[in-house]
Amino acid sequence: MVIDDRLKALGIELPCAPSPAGSYQSVVIRNGVGYVSGQLPFRNGVLAYAGRVGDELSLEEAMRAAELATLNVLAQIKCSTDQWRSFARLLRLEGYVASARGFANQPEILDRASRLFSQVLGDRGAHARAAFSVEQLPLDASVELVVTFAVRPDA
Amino acid sequence: MVIDDRLKALGIELPCAPSPAGSYQSVVIRNGVGYVSGQLPFRNGVLAYAGRVGDELSLEEAMRAAELATLNVLAQIKCSTDQWRSFARLLRLEGYVASARGFANQPEILDRASRLFSQVLGDRGAHARAAFSVEQLPLDASVELVVTFAVRPDA
Amino acid sequence: MVIDDRLKALGIELPCAPSPAGSYQSVVIRNGVGYVSGQLPFRNGVLAYAGRVGDELSLEEAMRAAELATLNVLAQIKCSTDQWRSFARLLRLEGYVASARGFANQPEILDRASRLFSQVLGDRGAHARAAFSVEQLPLDASVELVVTFAVRPDA
Repeated sequence: MVIDDRLKALGIELPCAPSPAGSYQSVVIRNGVGYVSGQLPFRNGVLAYAGRVGDELSLEEAMRAAELATLNVLAQIKCSTDQWRSFARLLRLEGYVASARGFANQPEILDRASRLFSQVLGDRGAHARAAFSVEQLPLDASVELVVTFAVRPDA
Repeated sequence: MVIDDRLKALGIELPCAPSPAGSYQSVVIRNGVGYVSGQLPFRNGVLAYAGRVGDELSLEEAMRAAELATLNVLAQIKCSTDQWRSFARLLRLEGYVASARGFANQPEILDRASRLFSQVLGDRGAHARAAFSVEQLPLDASVELVVTFAVRPDA
Repeated sequence: MVIDDRLKALGIELPCAPSPAGSYQSVVIRNGVGYVSGQLPFRNGVLAYAGRVGDELSLEEAMRAAELATLNVLAQIKCSTDQWRSFARLLRLEGYVASARGFANQPEILDRASRLFSQVLGDRGAHARAAFSVEQLPLDASVELVVTFAVRPDA
């Protein structure tokens, strides 16, 4: 698959898709649209880079958190599309960044996620986006990504 | 209807679907997808359990707020699907919890909503989910639920 | 076009659709649904009405911010639907208002957006809505609007 080739070329090994943190499903697919549950910067089951950017976290650490969350989104999509076979394209990314008061550069942090999606998914990684700043996130995570994607009509 | 039987068995009487708080519609359905406007913990037209969990509200009170908001979501869906006839399944739940700084267990509160959806809707209540912590919500509500659902193609 | 006639009658000249603030697309359309990226109160490329309502901003200023963001949403839709030709109707508006602690009347501010959508789009401007209060938004904006719309099946 082209996407897995790109991952390999980038030296990225996708993590196992994280289990839900409660009584819900990681991904729901219906009528050509896939809804991915909110993904946090988990690495090997442990939340990385907790806290607020501009306060407990540097810009670079928050960007690495955004990367980790992106990898978890990709893992969820791969697992729910028969190894990308039914994946059509990304639709929308909503990105939430836990931020110290006065830190307003959430777009720069989320660009790390947007660019990684494009690097891995190519043209099919293009997406609409909305960025948000929040005081805190569940589990004190620094970044949360909510993604919608399209699946192929014949899938 | 099976869903109404389950409600009866659970001893739940659905409230009247709350009116919109402004110039919008409670539910919009199009192309097989229903978009429910944000639902708050209203009971008989009065907002219950206002304030922040971990501060003005206990965990248990916030869970009851989540239940009330869930009942309002169910009422909106029932009203907009000809008494469940065109309802196919839940798709996504986005849950916002007004939280004191340092309270990070929003997933436990939203699980009360997720489980209630499953109890009432059975398999059709499974959903993707994203949890958020916010400093405050409109009208000082403690919980706000934003739900997307699927309707039957022949509906 | 009827919509452009309404705009003219209202004395509104739509701005150019703002460019994305990062590595994403302003609008993604797929399977009959258009996803507009989060729109802020930009005017001629400059963010207007920065700050929090109930603190740095008055209610009236926040409403004007909501109007500006609405015009930008309309501009994005017009640009992505071949001058409204493939536009079917609005689906959902999610409105985020940067608010001082204790200010809970986000619905009144977002009503300015909801009414403007109806004035310009007529019946096709009806929408589901969810309102949120946040401590701050990207770029210190006072209002952010996230809109989903439907396109015509033959488009």
